[in-house]
Amino acid sequence: MTSTYPRRAVIREVGLRDGLQSLQAILPTAHKKTWIAAAHAAGQREIEVGSFVPARLLPQLADTAELVAFARTLPGLSVSVLVPNLRGAQDAIASGADLMVVPLSASHAHSLANLRKTPDEVVAEVARMRAARDAAGARTLIEGGVGTAFGCTIQGAVDAGEVLRLMQALLDAGADRVSLADTVGYADPAMVGALFERALAIAGERLWCGHFHDTRGLGLANVLAALQCGVTRFDACLAGIGGCPHAPGASGNVASEDLAYMLGSMGIDTGLDIGRLLSLRAEVAGWLQGETLHGTLARAGLPRTFAAAPARAAA
Amino acid sequence: MTSTYPRRAVIREVGLRDGLQSLQAILPTAHKKTWIAAAHAAGQREIEVGSFVPARLLPQLADTAELVAFARTLPGLSVSVLVPNLRGAQDAIASGADLMVVPLSASHAHSLANLRKTPDEVVAEVARMRAARDAAGARTLIEGGVGTAFGCTIQGAVDAGEVLRLMQALLDAGADRVSLADTVGYADPAMVGALFERALAIAGERLWCGHFHDTRGLGLANVLAALQCGVTRFDACLAGIGGCPHAPGASGNVASEDLAYMLGSMGIDTGLDIGRLLSLRAEVAGWLQGETLHGTLARAGLPRTFAAAPARAAA
Repeated sequence: MTSTYPRRAVIREVGLRDGLQSLQAILPTAHKKTWIAAAHAAGQREIEVGSFVPARLLPQLADTAELVAFARTLPGLSVSVLVPNLRGAQDAIASGADLMVVPLSASHAHSLANLRKTPDEVVAEVARMRAARDAAGARTLIEGGVGTAFGCTIQGAVDAGEVLRLMQALLDAGADRVSLADTVGYADPAMVGALFERALAIAGERLWCGHFHDTRGLGLANVLAALQCGVTRFDACLAGIGGCPHAPGASGNVASEDLAYMLGSMGIDTGLDIGRLLSLRAEVAGWLQGETLHGTLARAGLPRTFAAAPARAAA
Repeated sequence: MTSTYPRRAVIREVGLRDGLQSLQAILPTAHKKTWIAAAHAAGQREIEVGSFVPARLLPQLADTAELVAFARTLPGLSVSVLVPNLRGAQDAIASGADLMVVPLSASHAHSLANLRKTPDEVVAEVARMRAARDAAGARTLIEGGVGTAFGCTIQGAVDAGEVLRLMQALLDAGADRVSLADTVGYADPAMVGALFERALAIAGERLWCGHFHDTRGLGLANVLAALQCGVTRFDACLAGIGGCPHAPGASGNVASEDLAYMLGSMGIDTGLDIGRLLSLRAEVAGWLQGETLHGTLARAGLPRTFAAAPARAAA
């Protein structure tokens, strides 16, 4: 059976948030601005620039408001941030971010350990965020990101029915969009196909994004399975940064440049200039010396036969 | 669209041949026997133990005849070797190998550079091998392996029509089976799906195996695409050894243990005990210190939720 693939897909860059938050290095704000501008020049149009959390918890992301302000000056860029609670959402609304992603962990054990809330308490917080957003007359969209959707290092198995119940609850509470994340790298392509199929039946086009980690090497195969379901937006981190706190040395997020290569080679338009992405990776690698980077394309280079003409990046 | 997957698949271990031939280290025969025996104990039932080529060309594989003799003592093991020409085929037949794989490069430039023959001269050689096999009354099967099937570092693009013409020619010349190989890591899942679909229409069950390199990170995604076409046998190398002579430092073959994990997690029976494979990987890594190994599972370990009960390995 030959699969059909979408003509276009979006790689949402989350390296500045999901990547940097798990590294020791604190990147200077000027470097982050260079990264954002270069990613934009390479054709990226959706970038998560940081997280509105207390600076004492994540000093790596303390400059998020300044980065949102900078990123908003770049034409056509959708600027997103992560927010764990109402306080963060208020900051995101005030910053003028286009999108705020609210993490919810479908694993109750993981949710209590990481967010100190049950998943349903997060749903209730999303309802308060929506009310605050609407009261402010702001246009910052709310995305509920359902994490540990394929299993959890603490709890073990996570029931797909519970994942889908929470996804529906997020939509009912006022989330504009939802996404599914394999937070710990437990997913395989069969699981991805089965869960995304059911999730799409519930959320349709409001199922916005797939977020896969490459912890056990299946990141791109899982993207492929989601793509075959019709998902056309994927989170990724330049140089595959991100790691997994439960598996030291293990790969992190899917590498943006590897994903851009796979999609581009398949004839799926991402609007990205991979050469520029590889140059940016080299620059970021220089800033992150001593940190473990991932990704495969940077070692081997593009095939001789690879021909991409990204109209957007050239424009 | 939810994909359907086969219930069973076979990982053919080619690390002792495709892996070791590209490393500097020459592994002692005793270590290779330990590897073969441990792979068999982990459930592997198809192992390529070496290549019948002159020892001056590949001193790493000079002990192939002894390894075939040893491997034949292991119950239920299909022992394969690579043979580049009639002389090698005669050695393979004399050794009692179950299968000999004859490499043919669909890229004419690659074929001339590596084999000093045109692809059609290789086809003619296969006809002579078949005659020799039949004259000897031997049961050693002949597999024609069509390499550079998705492109070539020397020639660039390789026409799919030429790949399929050569595959048909191999069958017509007397090959019992054929396989397709992405020798240089140029394939993507869309290319794999399209070519294997056409190849299966020609060769049916005689299309025996897919051989993917992970040079640019797409190895497992390409396996997935072939699996969705109905291919159920894949070459792989323990620890992803193999490399690519044209891209120093780049990943080599798909890592056997990562592939076993992907298939096992998807509920596809490989008969493999992944824990034993990981132990074997650690032992082989000790022998190959200084060589670059690949593969992701060994760093992160199996998920808590992974449960495989390989009846064969336990038996």
